[in-house]
Amino acid sequence: MSCTISIDAMGGDVGIDVTVPASIACLKANPNLKLILVGDENQLQAKLASTLSEFADRIMIQHASQKVEMDESPSKALKNKKDSSMRVAINLVRDGKADACVSAGNTGALMATARFVLKMLPGIDRPAILSSLPSIYGHTHALDLGANVDCSAKQLFEFALMGNELVKALDNIEHPKVGLLNIGSEAVKGNKQVKDTAKLLEDSKLNYIGFVEGNSLNAGSEKVDLIVTDGFVGNVALKSIEGVAKMFGIALKEAFAKNLLTKCLGIIAYPVLKSFKQKVDPRLYNGASFLGLRGLVIKSHGGADALAFETAIHLAEVEITQDVIRKISDKMADILTSRENA
Amino acid sequence: MSCTISIDAMGGDVGIDVTVPASIACLKANPNLKLILVGDENQLQAKLASTLSEFADRIMIQHASQKVEMDESPSKALKNKKDSSMRVAINLVRDGKADACVSAGNTGALMATARFVLKMLPGIDRPAILSSLPSIYGHTHALDLGANVDCSAKQLFEFALMGNELVKALDNIEHPKVGLLNIGSEAVKGNKQVKDTAKLLEDSKLNYIGFVEGNSLNAGSEKVDLIVTDGFVGNVALKSIEGVAKMFGIALKEAFAKNLLTKCLGIIAYPVLKSFKQKVDPRLYNGASFLGLRGLVIKSHGGADALAFETAIHLAEVEITQDVIRKISDKMADILTSRENA
Repeated sequence: MSCTISIDAMGGDVGIDVTVPASIACLKANPNLKLILVGDENQLQAKLASTLSEFADRIMIQHASQKVEMDESPSKALKNKKDSSMRVAINLVRDGKADACVSAGNTGALMATARFVLKMLPGIDRPAILSSLPSIYGHTHALDLGANVDCSAKQLFEFALMGNELVKALDNIEHPKVGLLNIGSEAVKGNKQVKDTAKLLEDSKLNYIGFVEGNSLNAGSEKVDLIVTDGFVGNVALKSIEGVAKMFGIALKEAFAKNLLTKCLGIIAYPVLKSFKQKVDPRLYNGASFLGLRGLVIKSHGGADALAFETAIHLAEVEITQDVIRKISDKMADILTSRENA
Repeated sequence: MSCTISIDAMGGDVGIDVTVPASIACLKANPNLKLILVGDENQLQAKLASTLSEFADRIMIQHASQKVEMDESPSKALKNKKDSSMRVAINLVRDGKADACVSAGNTGALMATARFVLKMLPGIDRPAILSSLPSIYGHTHALDLGANVDCSAKQLFEFALMGNELVKALDNIEHPKVGLLNIGSEAVKGNKQVKDTAKLLEDSKLNYIGFVEGNSLNAGSEKVDLIVTDGFVGNVALKSIEGVAKMFGIALKEAFAKNLLTKCLGIIAYPVLKSFKQKVDPRLYNGASFLGLRGLVIKSHGGADALAFETAIHLAEVEITQDVIRKISDKMADILTSRENA
């Protein structure tokens, strides 16, 4: 199945030096993939150079004269950057010219633009951000990771429904195990919001396993496929995990850099350290899905390198192939209908 | 300065096989320390054996006929376990026979009992849990880590004031850098609760540095001495950090256990891996302080081993020496007076 993805080529901390090599690598890996690189035409032409002819039928350049800055306010980007690489890339999804858009740009601006251009599914107010994290069981999906700071139980329940459809499609499992993030697994623990959400989940057809704690994101006592939380808690948890991973990396590097002997040991143990690193490499988990939109938008980490950006493009390919937007829309339409008939 | 600490010797996943060896190690390390071990007299006598005579003037056994189970509900423990090692250890603080109590027991029961027996400072409703975490800058203190799930801005501000006094005393710094946990560092980010708290902190005499994100707990862009958040977010962040640390440990172990060659490499690199482990060893950060009580209670991790439990006892020693309860009481009384005069 052929799929076309628009790439916000200017987005991210680095821009085209990351997005272009990643795009080329993806084109090489998947002969059914077509990419529309959106950004400054001259820069893109120069960067692509000879590759352009190699993939002539599968790579297109779409000029955009502006770029959204990483620290630009979402409302300003929306108002003043109508010809930004980000906006034009999302327009291509709206116009049916691309099946998905991938951007490493400013998260707030990407969300605001996606919401404005693509619109939300009926009843959903803002996109929820879902991403996967490495875990001792493989991986765990979690949402919302930062879009919605105050969530009602109804919203958290909708996140669970949307996330469940996505996880079914991505992991090819029929009944993902869904957990609700809390500060203890006992029913009495937590605030009103999680207790109310638990009731909705218990009454639903989801494979709800109950409350889970923060450690379940990476290493709980059992595998959880999808962890639901509000965007404030989810974002703090995600950033905390990033922080401790960084600290571990620094401490490990420092231990091996201590003196000549430890440096030699580091060289000898390099293959093992590399295999360890690959298991927990955050670049292999890059790519967050915005759920609740009427089109597919994948957010890459702003500081992504080419390998990480490749992972995000690959995620878009899978979500296109799995037709996740239709699946989520159908599910949410069902819910809306059953609520109206109730 | 001599100090006396009551030890809930039966508390924790293991009990006296952890609490007694840790107690002996602490007595050896600090000639000014006196300990009252609270629990089953016969078991304690047997376990202490010859050590009892060695430290005859600095170790006492206080019999308690009951034990609070790790999964017992706080209200039941409070009602039915009036002669538990936990309760009796806290009573000793109330009666002025001990300067602090250390327990690895059930957190909820410990908090409920401490609150009931010792009472709260005027205006404080529940204790806030403060602990330190390893960071690339040394360590960071954070509160609340799980006691208060819904916090008003006023409460969060009080946490900051109490935590500030403790950090001043523990780290011997005049103006700790205080950060407020949020999902972004820009002023527009976050929910009403953090925005309102930010205003209170900005108007205070604290060295408030603004919003910080989850990664600042371990590896932010600058050193933060104290991070303030509500107990829901703080607990999820803490558990997330524990989860990712566990995952890293497992992945590192697996990488070296792969085959005979990697096992040999593991043995060769052992001194380096050990020095790495020491830097991030959670046992060296064990011990959470309950702030807002009229007495000193230190909570050890339930699964603590002897080294970890030693760390918790040592924390109690420092807090006694630094007279932190008086310092916090004075600060909170000042605030209350200035509010009444306002």
